[in-house]
Amino acid sequence: MNKKLVFYTLGKLMLFVSALLIPPLVVSLFTRDGCWTAYLETLAALLVPALLLYTLIKPEDKSMYAREGMAVAGLSWILISFVGCLPLVFSDVCGLADAFFEIASGFTTTGATVLSDVEALPQSIALWRSCTHWVGGMGVLVLTTALLPGTGASMAKAESAGPQFSKLLPKVGDSSKILYIIYSALTALLAVALLLCGMTPFDSILHALSTAGTGGFSNRALSIGYYDSAAIDIVIGVFMLLFGVSFTVYFRLISRDFKNAFKSEELWVFLGLCAAATLFIGIDISSIYGGLGKGLRYSFFQVSAIISTTGFSTADFNLWPALSKALLLLIMVVGSCAGSTAGGLKLIRAMLLVKLTKREITRSFKPRSVKVIKLDGKSVSEDMLSHIAVFFFVYMLITAFGIVVLALCGCDLTESISGSIACISNIGPGFGRFGPMGGFGFLPPLAKVIMALIMLAGRLEFYPMLVLFFPSAWRKS
Amino acid sequence: MNKKLVFYTLGKLMLFVSALLIPPLVVSLFTRDGCWTAYLETLAALLVPALLLYTLIKPEDKSMYAREGMAVAGLSWILISFVGCLPLVFSDVCGLADAFFEIASGFTTTGATVLSDVEALPQSIALWRSCTHWVGGMGVLVLTTALLPGTGASMAKAESAGPQFSKLLPKVGDSSKILYIIYSALTALLAVALLLCGMTPFDSILHALSTAGTGGFSNRALSIGYYDSAAIDIVIGVFMLLFGVSFTVYFRLISRDFKNAFKSEELWVFLGLCAAATLFIGIDISSIYGGLGKGLRYSFFQVSAIISTTGFSTADFNLWPALSKALLLLIMVVGSCAGSTAGGLKLIRAMLLVKLTKREITRSFKPRSVKVIKLDGKSVSEDMLSHIAVFFFVYMLITAFGIVVLALCGCDLTESISGSIACISNIGPGFGRFGPMGGFGFLPPLAKVIMALIMLAGRLEFYPMLVLFFPSAWRKS
Repeated sequence: MNKKLVFYTLGKLMLFVSALLIPPLVVSLFTRDGCWTAYLETLAALLVPALLLYTLIKPEDKSMYAREGMAVAGLSWILISFVGCLPLVFSDVCGLADAFFEIASGFTTTGATVLSDVEALPQSIALWRSCTHWVGGMGVLVLTTALLPGTGASMAKAESAGPQFSKLLPKVGDSSKILYIIYSALTALLAVALLLCGMTPFDSILHALSTAGTGGFSNRALSIGYYDSAAIDIVIGVFMLLFGVSFTVYFRLISRDFKNAFKSEELWVFLGLCAAATLFIGIDISSIYGGLGKGLRYSFFQVSAIISTTGFSTADFNLWPALSKALLLLIMVVGSCAGSTAGGLKLIRAMLLVKLTKREITRSFKPRSVKVIKLDGKSVSEDMLSHIAVFFFVYMLITAFGIVVLALCGCDLTESISGSIACISNIGPGFGRFGPMGGFGFLPPLAKVIMALIMLAGRLEFYPMLVLFFPSAWRKS
Repeated sequence: MNKKLVFYTLGKLMLFVSALLIPPLVVSLFTRDGCWTAYLETLAALLVPALLLYTLIKPEDKSMYAREGMAVAGLSWILISFVGCLPLVFSDVCGLADAFFEIASGFTTTGATVLSDVEALPQSIALWRSCTHWVGGMGVLVLTTALLPGTGASMAKAESAGPQFSKLLPKVGDSSKILYIIYSALTALLAVALLLCGMTPFDSILHALSTAGTGGFSNRALSIGYYDSAAIDIVIGVFMLLFGVSFTVYFRLISRDFKNAFKSEELWVFLGLCAAATLFIGIDISSIYGGLGKGLRYSFFQVSAIISTTGFSTADFNLWPALSKALLLLIMVVGSCAGSTAGGLKLIRAMLLVKLTKREITRSFKPRSVKVIKLDGKSVSEDMLSHIAVFFFVYMLITAFGIVVLALCGCDLTESISGSIACISNIGPGFGRFGPMGGFGFLPPLAKVIMALIMLAGRLEFYPMLVLFFPSAWRKS
């Protein structure tokens, strides 16, 4: 490992990240919510070590290989969660462990909260939580490569969600730029739509940022349920799905490659899964809401919120029947499409695992059959398939670890299982005390830090976090 | 598929299976429990179609390949569960769906029950339930190959538990014979030990059969808790673990190959896992039982019962704290050693998956590293590793299916998850209404049949059951 390069890059990144604090600082000054000193203190605490790292460390070799990229990705996400949480600490919103959980939950677009009263938050802090969702959704390092040409591609790769089959553009910086342009345009569109539906300008921007990152932080205790508006439900419901779709689709659309834009097995399976889950849950809950129409409205919103791993709610799905809860739990694991801002296992992995299963069954009775697995008409390498199969085990292994941690804190099985999945898949709410009306606030500080690390591991798809614990990764190569 | 051979073999197997009904028939005549006609009716119902299949179908080609072996294994297990349940139906113990569940639970050594009052069962029926455990534990087809030389090896292979790395003896028939000799000797030893601990002769034999198969049926509503004897707890606790160990260990011991007998990574991980789980749960429950000593006694028994997938109980672990329940749930998934009579994922698979994970982490920062994974000093083929990774996904996929089925029946999340794992891992009890003091009796008939099929799928490690639903397996090769 080229440690000098790692720390030099971290310094550079931190300088860059400090710019993210400007919008909430401006809002704080405008709204006079009294938090502006907290941002300045954070900037001071951030800039000093960042400048030291950036100026004092001079790596001889600036070529970034896989291991440096992984280490930078893992470390920088822990670091930005730490730095990003300081405004909450300095403005006395909560203590350090709580703030670290909250902002890790923000950047990883989990949206799980430890705060008991989000409506009482200073406006700039509420906006800052949603800003972390927005940046974390598409990726901090992706943003860096978009704005700073020549930054290592391997770290942006380590951060992006889902297995990668193709690139948008030959240069990583160009791809990142295009991705952020599409992302910003969709976010702006959503903010305008919400404004037209009657939300205040501030709430529109805040919820647009949270939705785009598929995060789920709201400044309302009842989440989207607060507005009690079918129009808002539908707009946010549809946009959550849009942000759960691979951005390759939008890239092809704006490139006028209409033929290939919708030629994606994953997209159609995603839409089919959403429709099926909405229907089953809608029927299951229709008696609670006095009719299938209302049942489908709440079901569509919740399925969209859970499968896109956003975690908004319009109803307390904790009180829904067993079947609905079981279906929600299963789509929590799967999540949305690769190349979107959503978390979870990613649908493409689940689809390839199902294809692998079919091949395995065939091989059990035809031991000598050789069959290549295809996706969208192209064959998938055996290497990629094996990565995916192991990835699924790692997902389950870390989920099991989270279950034990939560059980140690006295959570019952339903809470432990759903809470652990809600963190690793970056959903937000689970069941029981972790439900949409609850939160993670009751956990002891150490458990909060561990669950925050599990969110980070889930967001980075494990390996950038896991390598940090591997001594051999740190040795000189 | 050579369908003629499949049906001819099924006929032969059924003739053979009819011999299994002789012991309970004799017991019924001795104890005058009024069930002897039920066995005779079952024999009549069994022998007529079996003889027809065996005499009328004349396969030209008698060589059994993988696909015929798989199909015979899958079909024969459904068939013996069906035939085996007829004595319960003919003696008015319960209806057909209940009886099918009960006997599938018996042969698969699950030990989950739908009967509300096991103490009221006719003695011969209680014994028959435990007999199915004993035969199912080591395997019906393994028994057939042991006693009928020349029977297809591929079907015994399709039935045996865990990935196969080495054979005991060159000939399958010889291996099967040795296995059944060791198995019978250990069972007899246990029966004598239980007799010495003060159990009645009948209870000793019944519980020895149930323990050996790692099944868990008892003729006592309180299971082993009925005897409230530390000696019995310890004897059964130790023997459950012995039956959870690979029989290769015993084979090597009687072959005086002491050097290699204990040279098994899986064995030591198994013992370490049991010790760790016993300790943690023992401490967690010590306050309930007023001291660490008693806590460890109940914890040891329950860990042994769950990890060996037997499912006996000496306490209602439903009432234990969250941590203990979470740990029990996790060892439910893992199960015991390959080549034992236990169910579950098998420890060897979990160990290889952990090794795969470590390699995957290394590869993420050293993309070009080539590392062979070893077990007991021997390298494991990439093919085997990929089988195991997919196996884990199939396990989770069928578990998820079971969760949805149980949730549809109104089970809450804890019940659905634990009930589905209890069936697929062939444990028996789960949590909630499926707990040690409850059962599966409240489920609707269709759900019982589906859960019985999930048990069968789990016992046969999925593929022999899954191929039955694959049209291409049935085509002429």
